Amino acid sequence: MQHEPVDPRTEDLGFARVDVDRAARTGDAEVVYGAGKSPDQIVAILTTLHERHPDRAVLATRLTDEAMHAVAGIGAEVDLVARAATLGPLPTPAGTVGIVSAGTSDAPVAAEAALTARVHGAEVHEIRDVGVAGLHRLLGVRDDLERADCLVVVAGMEGALPSVVGGLVGVPMVAVPTSVGYGASFGGLAALLAMLNSCAPGVTVVNIDNGYGAGVFAARVARRVGVLRKP
Amino acid sequence: MQHEPVDPRTEDLGFARVDVDRAARTGDAEVVYGAGKSPDQIVAILTTLHERHPDRAVLATRLTDEAMHAVAGIGAEVDLVARAATLGPLPTPAGTVGIVSAGTSDAPVAAEAALTARVHGAEVHEIRDVGVAGLHRLLGVRDDLERADCLVVVAGMEGALPSVVGGLVGVPMVAVPTSVGYGASFGGLAALLAMLNSCAPGVTVVNIDNGYGAGVFAARVARRVGVLRKP
Amino acid sequence: MQHEPVDPRTEDLGFARVDVDRAARTGDAEVVYGAGKSPDQIVAILTTLHERHPDRAVLATRLTDEAMHAVAGIGAEVDLVARAATLGPLPTPAGTVGIVSAGTSDAPVAAEAALTARVHGAEVHEIRDVGVAGLHRLLGVRDDLERADCLVVVAGMEGALPSVVGGLVGVPMVAVPTSVGYGASFGGLAALLAMLNSCAPGVTVVNIDNGYGAGVFAARVARRVGVLRKP
Amino acid sequence: MQHEPVDPRTEDLGFARVDVDRAARTGDAEVVYGAGKSPDQIVAILTTLHERHPDRAVLATRLTDEAMHAVAGIGAEVDLVARAATLGPLPTPAGTVGIVSAGTSDAPVAAEAALTARVHGAEVHEIRDVGVAGLHRLLGVRDDLERADCLVVVAGMEGALPSVVGGLVGVPMVAVPTSVGYGASFGGLAALLAMLNSCAPGVTVVNIDNGYGAGVFAARVARRVGVLRKP
Amino acid sequence: MQHEPVDPRTEDLGFARVDVDRAARTGDAEVVYGAGKSPDQIVAILTTLHERHPDRAVLATRLTDEAMHAVAGIGAEVDLVARAATLGPLPTPAGTVGIVSAGTSDAPVAAEAALTARVHGAEVHEIRDVGVAGLHRLLGVRDDLERADCLVVVAGMEGALPSVVGGLVGVPMVAVPTSVGYGASFGGLAALLAMLNSCAPGVTVVNIDNGYGAGVFAARVARRVGVLRKP
Amino acid sequence: MQHEPVDPRTEDLGFARVDVDRAARTGDAEVVYGAGKSPDQIVAILTTLHERHPDRAVLATRLTDEAMHAVAGIGAEVDLVARAATLGPLPTPAGTVGIVSAGTSDAPVAAEAALTARVHGAEVHEIRDVGVAGLHRLLGVRDDLERADCLVVVAGMEGALPSVVGGLVGVPMVAVPTSVGYGASFGGLAALLAMLNSCAPGVTVVNIDNGYGAGVFAARVARRVGVLRKP
Amino acid sequence: MQHEPVDPRTEDLGFARVDVDRAARTGDAEVVYGAGKSPDQIVAILTTLHERHPDRAVLATRLTDEAMHAVAGIGAEVDLVARAATLGPLPTPAGTVGIVSAGTSDAPVAAEAALTARVHGAEVHEIRDVGVAGLHRLLGVRDDLERADCLVVVAGMEGALPSVVGGLVGVPMVAVPTSVGYGASFGGLAALLAMLNSCAPGVTVVNIDNGYGAGVFAARVARRVGVLRKP
Amino acid sequence: MQHEPVDPRTEDLGFARVDVDRAARTGDAEVVYGAGKSPDQIVAILTTLHERHPDRAVLATRLTDEAMHAVAGIGAEVDLVARAATLGPLPTPAGTVGIVSAGTSDAPVAAEAALTARVHGAEVHEIRDVGVAGLHRLLGVRDDLERADCLVVVAGMEGALPSVVGGLVGVPMVAVPTSVGYGASFGGLAALLAMLNSCAPGVTVVNIDNGYGAGVFAARVARRVGVLRKP
Repeated sequence: MQHEPVDPRTEDLGFARVDVDRAARTGDAEVVYGAGKSPDQIVAILTTLHERHPDRAVLATRLTDEAMHAVAGIGAEVDLVARAATLGPLPTPAGTVGIVSAGTSDAPVAAEAALTARVHGAEVHEIRDVGVAGLHRLLGVRDDLERADCLVVVAGMEGALPSVVGGLVGVPMVAVPTSVGYGASFGGLAALLAMLNSCAPGVTVVNIDNGYGAGVFAARVARRVGVLRKP
Repeated sequence: MQHEPVDPRTEDLGFARVDVDRAARTGDAEVVYGAGKSPDQIVAILTTLHERHPDRAVLATRLTDEAMHAVAGIGAEVDLVARAATLGPLPTPAGTVGIVSAGTSDAPVAAEAALTARVHGAEVHEIRDVGVAGLHRLLGVRDDLERADCLVVVAGMEGALPSVVGGLVGVPMVAVPTSVGYGASFGGLAALLAMLNSCAPGVTVVNIDNGYGAGVFAARVARRVGVLRKP
Repeated sequence: MQHEPVDPRTEDLGFARVDVDRAARTGDAEVVYGAGKSPDQIVAILTTLHERHPDRAVLATRLTDEAMHAVAGIGAEVDLVARAATLGPLPTPAGTVGIVSAGTSDAPVAAEAALTARVHGAEVHEIRDVGVAGLHRLLGVRDDLERADCLVVVAGMEGALPSVVGGLVGVPMVAVPTSVGYGASFGGLAALLAMLNSCAPGVTVVNIDNGYGAGVFAARVARRVGVLRKP
Repeated sequence: MQHEPVDPRTEDLGFARVDVDRAARTGDAEVVYGAGKSPDQIVAILTTLHERHPDRAVLATRLTDEAMHAVAGIGAEVDLVARAATLGPLPTPAGTVGIVSAGTSDAPVAAEAALTARVHGAEVHEIRDVGVAGLHRLLGVRDDLERADCLVVVAGMEGALPSVVGGLVGVPMVAVPTSVGYGASFGGLAALLAMLNSCAPGVTVVNIDNGYGAGVFAARVARRVGVLRKP
Repeated sequence: MQHEPVDPRTEDLGFARVDVDRAARTGDAEVVYGAGKSPDQIVAILTTLHERHPDRAVLATRLTDEAMHAVAGIGAEVDLVARAATLGPLPTPAGTVGIVSAGTSDAPVAAEAALTARVHGAEVHEIRDVGVAGLHRLLGVRDDLERADCLVVVAGMEGALPSVVGGLVGVPMVAVPTSVGYGASFGGLAALLAMLNSCAPGVTVVNIDNGYGAGVFAARVARRVGVLRKP
Repeated sequence: MQHEPVDPRTEDLGFARVDVDRAARTGDAEVVYGAGKSPDQIVAILTTLHERHPDRAVLATRLTDEAMHAVAGIGAEVDLVARAATLGPLPTPAGTVGIVSAGTSDAPVAAEAALTARVHGAEVHEIRDVGVAGLHRLLGVRDDLERADCLVVVAGMEGALPSVVGGLVGVPMVAVPTSVGYGASFGGLAALLAMLNSCAPGVTVVNIDNGYGAGVFAARVARRVGVLRKP
Repeated sequence: MQHEPVDPRTEDLGFARVDVDRAARTGDAEVVYGAGKSPDQIVAILTTLHERHPDRAVLATRLTDEAMHAVAGIGAEVDLVARAATLGPLPTPAGTVGIVSAGTSDAPVAAEAALTARVHGAEVHEIRDVGVAGLHRLLGVRDDLERADCLVVVAGMEGALPSVVGGLVGVPMVAVPTSVGYGASFGGLAALLAMLNSCAPGVTVVNIDNGYGAGVFAARVARRVGVLRKP
Repeated sequence: MQHEPVDPRTEDLGFARVDVDRAARTGDAEVVYGAGKSPDQIVAILTTLHERHPDRAVLATRLTDEAMHAVAGIGAEVDLVARAATLGPLPTPAGTVGIVSAGTSDAPVAAEAALTARVHGAEVHEIRDVGVAGLHRLLGVRDDLERADCLVVVAGMEGALPSVVGGLVGVPMVAVPTSVGYGASFGGLAALLAMLNSCAPGVTVVNIDNGYGAGVFAARVARRVGVLRKP
């Protein structure tokens, strides 16, 4: 009863019709969002996308332990902290993304942002454990912040870090609220609202725990600059 | 149909039964919450409380322009920024409350906290315009912060200031979220949640725009210390 | 009782201590947020900032009719749709910001973003009335979208426009939810949540009606690219 | 202690009094909502309803793996994706319901809507994987959309699909928000609010993940048209 | 700086680009949403749309007293209860929409739905004051409910009416929550949630106070049936 | 186009169909909810209901100053604090309702509950200004609380009074949250949630500011007891 | 370090200080809230309370399977549907509580209310499966409803049942929202808000799933009436 | 790719960079927040901090059973109720913190506050089971309350205890809402809102279940007083 036209831009795997043309359309890498998919499904989609794009890395995020094991079995590079993996060679980086995180609990989201930015063609510089309750650490890395082409700032709880970083440097910044916290953090809502209300101008925000979205955005910004600057 | 027992601890003004005994019970000053009361009612309650306590200031808060005018007419000292007034002599101060605020829009709440703390027997030191997006100002007043017996930190928007101050000094601190902001600030909710989730330990919070509550609390803390330190 | 150190980076106007050094620190223009300030206060701050920075435009936003009239009186250029004004010469633009809006009710927010981006050194290309319920208009401007260095997408109600634009082009994009709507729009919350959950990767979001923040961010991105591309 | 009158329109199973008369009253099929019921209870209710209505299919939804196994054992037709089953012959269809879904994660809700619509007497045409971030797929099926007597549009995350479809065709449409998403999706709330605020006129909405309700509604609309059109 | 292509499907009024082609695309009437527009703007848009579609009524909703006066001045038919107006002849009706409302406070929303349905080509039958707390009224009009091709059920406060009506008849139904209520009604949220959770199958919902959306939808459903039945 | 059957239990006033039969059905008094109605409409409905029930008082609530003036003109008894009025003789009371309130700001809601209870046939005993922050007042009236057949406890802000009263006596109690408060009171939501979560068993709750509903309920309970106890 | 005075009204079990005097103070039965307590703790508290009150039943609610097994072992009467138990003889009932529930999923809450009412001295009449989508069942039991001294009405989803029952009879009524539902039911919030906004006067509400609280309240009302009516 | 400067104030454990200098900066004890950390990680951080500060206790909170077992293995003192542990000698206490709790379910939060206050140098006096529904217990300990230098008041459900205590004594007080409750308690939100809206002046609040934060704050206040008072 289903007669949709055959479209060369998609491939039908039975359980999903994969859009194998997104790279051409937006210049970004292909990605498999692993949450809610079985390891077998992830392996199948990853393989399909890799065959269509053998020369550039395909990304898989939100992987369970089983899925990380399964994709390692087909040669994917696994990042245990980010719970993500890549299949295929990373592109030559252009432009630098600085990824700043507040606490050790924010590490998985920061790592997802970092890997995503690398897959999307940017160099990544990670700056960790610079929470607002210990300003000396943050002031000590101000020059590093200044050197980035785009910053990703990851924080849970009260989500104050983007405001403080935004008062120090004028680099374009994406803030990522994390679900780290309890009680009136309401699963990251407190940090999300704080970041949306930042008194520092030019702070933009993505969804709670969305390291992937921040990484894509930051890489897009950094790449444009990096490519022009190259030599 | 109403036969409640006559209670020497209260006085009946017709429209309200005033508790004239709270000072004895808690050691605090008497206060009239002006919101929703007519200038005449405020003047009447203020006068009653002042007659019972002629030797210590009575406080009136949340006053309209009309109410400020009316209480000035009976000799009250009016604070135009705080929209509050006092009738009777301020107590000799003991202990110091530091009141830190982020932006000029937070001034009315900070001023209400300051006047309240003074009425409740503390010396007040005000530190203004030290928002988190301009850390150099804040770092420049660190010694002032350290010297206070209790801090009141007032901030709207993302409410990040208490976390930053709490990372600098170990002085007991009350955070006051203000309704300054728009959109996803939701009338101060964003700042309130941020403060409740502060990563700096030992931050306590009062209701949105509740400078009065913060002032009472901070004065109670400072007074205890100041009285012992005095001689 | 207030002995804060004199700081050459700030200027005290009595009712506010103005940060006249932000430009040096972040490279951005100075700005006066007009909401809650009297026309006289706005004129005073604008004048102070202009005197310190006579060679580059100072921006004033969220102006009432009275404030727009007052700042016009001191020679400021007023934008009636944006309810904003500039004093001093606009910088030579570098890089292009595309500003896309859905409906006529979103025009004030789009205009605030446009003027802010110009004040912050970017060229601006405005694309109006391209709501998702009329795709033909949107598809007709795809090349214009592609040419921008950064996009600002402004939409109220269901906030679907950023997702659709994000599926067409890979340009870095900032989404601005507006408070246009009624009932279960909850003052722009529906659009804000929709944008935070966009299925298009690389969409970042600012506060409801925050055209200013989006303009600052987009100009920062566009400028970096534009400066390198120039010669 | 319970003496309720015996009612021929209901049947008492001990743990539930089944309304066996709803079909006569509203013209719809009988249904068992499986969530929170044991496989035994579901089998019992399904059997009772089937005996009363042997000539038309009875529907069971929200089935666990165990319940699907149990009802298969009494001859029910099981739909693994929809997690639903039917017992008895499907009616001859009249009128067409088009069911449009955005992503593979929305498949279970779309399948529940499809099976429900079939049980309620409509022909169903499914159109999958037409998310707003890939407009070319959607524009390619415009004629299919136009041919339906009623559309069911299923989407999670930002819930933008109904607005885009509603801008293309004037067919009556029911939007179904799904709980697909994370963080600020708040279990489907973001998609629900977006759909309620759709700028496309004539979009109506059902509860989050309520494929059943949408299927009933769409079949009622399609049947009325289909029956008249027949010949 | 704006060079959008000239599009015959739109007309530029300076302050708005009017989509004069929607009727052809979706078969619906043109509409002006009056909220936030000046009487002059409303008159201008109404005139433009009327000139393009002289043979079918154009609708204007959410009109202020001033706007109702202004559009009456150009010959529009004004509905004072609905706060809406039409310019041009109403279409010959096909199919019947039943509009059921609970209380007198819901009258404006019911009237907006009724006028909208008429403008979109349906006959309208209004049934008023049939709240759930007085079932005898509701049971008395059951046959009228049964005769409609589509029902619009309007209710504020606890929003229970759609569930009760949905238990009586199997006619397709759109529920409209209204903002009638106070306190924990939260501006219509209570009624909205109740309707989304209706235990009666096949109830669909539109935004709070959205009589227009319900009217468009119901007319689309009724028209399809009515046209076929005609003879 | 409207042909609803003539029903002797209702009377049509043009702008409203009045249910003149509710008294027979539930034993309660007739009431006009004045919010959103013009003084003329209120007078008309009040007159109609009074003519049908000349021997028992009809109640009008939520009256503006103009409406209170208007109904006084037709001989109604006006309660300025409750913003309510009665027309016709109050019934002979049976049973006692105790109405306890916390602060002077809660007086209007308490007065609405008191008048409503009297209109519905109960004797009323009011106990005012017994907030939880002054327990001595509350403990002083414990015997009065004990003597009531049903208690109505009215409180805003943190809504703690019902829990404290519920720990003192076992009399059936209805709690009424009021919208008194600011900031995180969210228009009475804080008090409402507190009352719903009371640790004292047997506390029931009505909507925010709903003195009327509490009065009806309490009178129903008190009347049943009072009538039996009478002779 | 703990030297609280020994109080004959309490008994210290090490892990809890049990209030063995509540019965004397409020006239109610003693109760153990089982959630979060181990079976051993529940048995210990139940035993202590039973020894102090051997002549009247003690109640335990919210019991796990293990806890139900454990208390059965010490001779308690277990109600499997209510997940509750009693130890000691039930009092002779006075007055009747009618407990009305909408669906089979609401049975546990209705059963908790029923058992609680019996323990608190009332006779209970249960009326099940009378949802608003099947009015004929409800109309058939109207006389039963009328005969009760107090009604408890239990409903989940849209929570409409109390409004409909409240329109039929004038008996005092307590509404209990249940967490039955999904999606936008938000764990019972939809039903709670609906009940608080009921258009039927005299409906009071308790917390979500709080059958215990409703049972206590209803028994208090019924007992007062029943005791007087008895002889 | 990471070249952050080596900072003597931090120590790098591979999975976390520990701030070993906080004690010097704020005068507080070091703490390990155990939630989300493995027993091995907790042991490692605890050991590192203890080696740097052998002369004062280090605190670990939010421990799982496994973590409590693991830290006991390295000689830490474990508090089973608080689910917390200390390593190293407690400081000599100065000043007294009174910790008041309402029910046995609040015990873990109260115990966390107590242990934290002790680790931070205060003497602790615990007062348990003094809920507002049993005022006699509370009135019996009024002198104990008065003697404390700072009070921590812990309560779930309706969160009324701080208001009642605040009406009895004028001691500085921190209120801790707990997540004890169900339904409309919304995980402690009801208690949190109640405490923020307390009518007793000078009540400050921390996050839901945040016994640690309250303990730090109260110890800071008590210590300042205690040190001065000593001899």
